[in-house]
Amino acid sequence: MNRYDGPVRETVLRSATKEVVMASDRPFCIIGERINPTGRKLFQEQLRAGDLSLIEKDVHAQVAGGADVLDVNMGVPLTDEAELLVKAIRLVQTLTDLPICIDSSVVEALEAGLAAYQGRALVNSVTAEDERLEAILPLVKKYDAAVIALPNDADEIPMEADKRIELTEKIVRVATQEYGIAIEDIVIDPLAMPIGADGTVGRTALETIARVHERWGLNMTCGASNVSFGMPGRHAINSSWLPLAMGAGMTSAIMDARTPQIVEAVRAADLLLGNDAWGSAWIAAFRAKQAAVGPS
Amino acid sequence: MNRYDGPVRETVLRSATKEVVMASDRPFCIIGERINPTGRKLFQEQLRAGDLSLIEKDVHAQVAGGADVLDVNMGVPLTDEAELLVKAIRLVQTLTDLPICIDSSVVEALEAGLAAYQGRALVNSVTAEDERLEAILPLVKKYDAAVIALPNDADEIPMEADKRIELTEKIVRVATQEYGIAIEDIVIDPLAMPIGADGTVGRTALETIARVHERWGLNMTCGASNVSFGMPGRHAINSSWLPLAMGAGMTSAIMDARTPQIVEAVRAADLLLGNDAWGSAWIAAFRAKQAAVGPS
Repeated sequence: MNRYDGPVRETVLRSATKEVVMASDRPFCIIGERINPTGRKLFQEQLRAGDLSLIEKDVHAQVAGGADVLDVNMGVPLTDEAELLVKAIRLVQTLTDLPICIDSSVVEALEAGLAAYQGRALVNSVTAEDERLEAILPLVKKYDAAVIALPNDADEIPMEADKRIELTEKIVRVATQEYGIAIEDIVIDPLAMPIGADGTVGRTALETIARVHERWGLNMTCGASNVSFGMPGRHAINSSWLPLAMGAGMTSAIMDARTPQIVEAVRAADLLLGNDAWGSAWIAAFRAKQAAVGPS
Repeated sequence: MNRYDGPVRETVLRSATKEVVMASDRPFCIIGERINPTGRKLFQEQLRAGDLSLIEKDVHAQVAGGADVLDVNMGVPLTDEAELLVKAIRLVQTLTDLPICIDSSVVEALEAGLAAYQGRALVNSVTAEDERLEAILPLVKKYDAAVIALPNDADEIPMEADKRIELTEKIVRVATQEYGIAIEDIVIDPLAMPIGADGTVGRTALETIARVHERWGLNMTCGASNVSFGMPGRHAINSSWLPLAMGAGMTSAIMDARTPQIVEAVRAADLLLGNDAWGSAWIAAFRAKQAAVGPS
């Protein structure tokens, strides 16, 4: 066995009307990162005032850019996050049929979001900490969702792949044996840290990805924009990161779905990895782009 | 052992005054592909008439683009290839101090080129066929060069990684045991074929790269533009191919050094793989680009 023919596991996500499957023999699953007020002052102010209109713009831009799933995070200080998240999820579901990744660190907000969501959601996220596993996994089971799991405990991110594998093992054991969650509904985040702070973090994440893929065949996703944080030329770094991670076995990313260079990097890697039969998606995307630009 | 800490082998190339080292813990070695008349009608006509002036333009563009080594191929029908290759190598060595990859299928041309070259060249290439090994390896040894070796025999390209590994084993055995060539002077070409003809060729090449790296730690190079042959959006495909191949263990490519997107894909992957300490090369390149464009 090697990473090009390891076990294939299918993580099935759904909206009311559309199904998206994450798997190592399918096109990479692009989860649009944009519906998130972190670092967006205007968006935060508007949300605090009950104005959700920017969400509509973010949905359209990400759908047009090629997102397969949309992350929805409503972490705005001094608001009722559960209430805001429910409103946002309902709004997004009127605007698109893409499945949603429900993103919150607040357990009550996750539960409210799951209750309001129509379909099969991806929960973002749980860690290997006992209290987080105990709080979040019952919700994942109750609402028949899939879950992103980060192999870290306490507040510290382990800097060695060995430790991340050990924590992944714990997550898999607890989720499947104690909560009856299907192994294919666990999506591991290998923890891609900013390369500018430490030149070894890319290799550590790649080694984690390769080992998780070879051992369990689990699907994996990560915050792809994170690796380039603080560096110049971020689009180019992100555009190289995604093929590197895909080659190691990553099957999804929470990423910028609005920048053509980055989305193209993913779709070209799909083609090169044999996950775009006959190159038909690649060629169709190229023709659509040519049609949009007009004859040259 | 995994591919992120396999054996490191150093292939040393030199011009009269400059040394370039190919290794898995060094920045990727970009071999500029441009000085090659294949498919360039005007260049062929000029070369046939003894006019080598286009070479000067090609050298400058590739040096400016960030090439580490320059491939020189003078395969023009109806010419004395050995004579033309010697002239071209001498000319290139007056224009740049980058080492040269001497590229010919004609044994006499390779020998004349090696005799004329000042430094330690890379010979492009030998295959696993007995008669090619017997003809070319003595030259590699005599002129203390390194050599690119393709794991194919007869005229057929093996479509399975197993067969490529078997032929790599033969090449390594013959070169080291029968000709006394140092193992680190063998650079394997994993054979990256056009993805448009067969969607599985990318995976086969990646598997070959990973297995050659894990087993021997050999340096590897390939004609990187080849994978996108016949497809639209070639720059984007090549820009994803290089990080994929680098992640598997490829340490060099004979490639387009004149397209910023492709060179940036390589340099970003160097950064992410931890082969650009402190990101200093990445940041310096970004500053140079900003300076060239001027303040925005």
